Amino acid sequence: MSNNLRGVWTAALTPQNEDLSVDFDALVAHYRWLLANGSDGIAVLGTTGEANSFSVAERRALIERVGEAGFASNEIMIGTGCCAFPDTVELTRAALAAGYANILMLPPFFYKGVSDDGLFRAYANVIERIGDDAMAIYVYDFPKMTGLEISPDLLVRLHEAFPTTIVGVKDSSGSWPDMLEVAERIPGFGTFAGTERYLLPVLRAGGAGCISATANVTCGLAAELYAAWRGEGAEALQERVTQVRLALEAYPAVPSLKEIMAAHTGRAGWRQARPPMVALSDGARADLFRDLEAIGFALQEAA
Amino acid sequence: MSNNLRGVWTAALTPQNEDLSVDFDALVAHYRWLLANGSDGIAVLGTTGEANSFSVAERRALIERVGEAGFASNEIMIGTGCCAFPDTVELTRAALAAGYANILMLPPFFYKGVSDDGLFRAYANVIERIGDDAMAIYVYDFPKMTGLEISPDLLVRLHEAFPTTIVGVKDSSGSWPDMLEVAERIPGFGTFAGTERYLLPVLRAGGAGCISATANVTCGLAAELYAAWRGEGAEALQERVTQVRLALEAYPAVPSLKEIMAAHTGRAGWRQARPPMVALSDGARADLFRDLEAIGFALQEAA
Repeated sequence: MSNNLRGVWTAALTPQNEDLSVDFDALVAHYRWLLANGSDGIAVLGTTGEANSFSVAERRALIERVGEAGFASNEIMIGTGCCAFPDTVELTRAALAAGYANILMLPPFFYKGVSDDGLFRAYANVIERIGDDAMAIYVYDFPKMTGLEISPDLLVRLHEAFPTTIVGVKDSSGSWPDMLEVAERIPGFGTFAGTERYLLPVLRAGGAGCISATANVTCGLAAELYAAWRGEGAEALQERVTQVRLALEAYPAVPSLKEIMAAHTGRAGWRQARPPMVALSDGARADLFRDLEAIGFALQEAA
Repeated sequence: MSNNLRGVWTAALTPQNEDLSVDFDALVAHYRWLLANGSDGIAVLGTTGEANSFSVAERRALIERVGEAGFASNEIMIGTGCCAFPDTVELTRAALAAGYANILMLPPFFYKGVSDDGLFRAYANVIERIGDDAMAIYVYDFPKMTGLEISPDLLVRLHEAFPTTIVGVKDSSGSWPDMLEVAERIPGFGTFAGTERYLLPVLRAGGAGCISATANVTCGLAAELYAAWRGEGAEALQERVTQVRLALEAYPAVPSLKEIMAAHTGRAGWRQARPPMVALSDGARADLFRDLEAIGFALQEAA
């Protein structure tokens, strides 16, 4: 398989019930809303989806429910990377069995100071144990959370060893030089920026688009940019996208995005999140909505 | 329950077979060897034991095998802290069911920039869901791996909220002022330094001892210090312990300790470790043994 995904992808939130179990009805409704309102695709069980706060059994059940809801394979990418390789193998097989070959894979993230050889070994071990040519892995590079650096050299090495399996990267490092280097060194590689702030630059560099937490609420705006990125107004649209992204970045991502969804849908349960997350205080919530109002941002619905 | 553990504890290595499954016979033999050669107790499934590189099912099986081997409850502490609270709850219940109430508990370690409120909520949620008064939790503070700081204030808050459950800490922060502050602010708290380098200071401050990776090979030496810590020769013994610890710290912990065990036992399988670990290169192995020889260190057997 090779990368065939492009555009604005949302690292989807995972709505929960009061007992912190997954609210599947709200989840499916949210995914449908995202796809109808500017998202080209959904990254299921990423950082924003609190993936690592759910057990493997809970994640398997979620993957199966997404499959039963009938989302198309080219609009779904599933996060499967765990610290323990048997878990990564199990979740990746569950994704493949549910019809989803696009995998977003964190490296094992407990140990720090890991060499490139160690990270290469981690990915190679999982790929070889799964042994399924259909699998298309997007390496998930998020140094702030993992404490690990996935260098351009390592991505090139992984892609050369597994050219039809290691097909892209979600670069949440925020390092624009690294994103540019990867897009240039591996033609056709699915380089997704981890933020819509770099959507226009990454597309111009030959990359695939973005996979973003804030796209849970900015997908409409980001989609306008994606539709027009080759045109004259692209830079102004990027400036607006960046303005909103920066306003949102002033608050903890998952709780603040869940507040916005709670306000938008009227479903108070949207505020539930698993530890170590805590809901925004009343003061922070008021500040968030005041900040967004000050820049004239509100959730957009597709016409 | 309250802290009643003291002395030199080893964060035990987990020997593996060629397919990276646990070699239970070698594991039980190693635990017995540690207890016969200076370890007062064994921390099972800690960082050195590659806990997070094993699935929950594999960790449950390991805990059950340790129970079947008949290790006493006061010589075993079991690591159960995972990113997902259902996993932490399941492993802690498995430890309690196997007869082991002493729990070494990491905070959920994927997300960074977590507030004290978030960390408090994480521990409180697990304690309340388990609801077993027998449980004695040692908070596992290892900022290098978790990217999180467990402050003395947070430990005091946790201990005040759960005085008979939050009974101690393994402080692998390397911050001596924090260890001293905790030992002073919570009398009777089980403050274990994460390295034998601080064994004498932590004992003098009223702490409980150390839980150490390198004790897999230095337990005999550390035990000499522990037996004599109130006497005149204690400082010289601490200097020797520190000298050996610093020599070992120049190499990646798990692979180098496994090399020493491989050499000691003649069992080549001791070199196996799960990704993202990689075995020492031939050069690094030669350097390690040359460094240890230069300071006259060799594994000691009890008389």
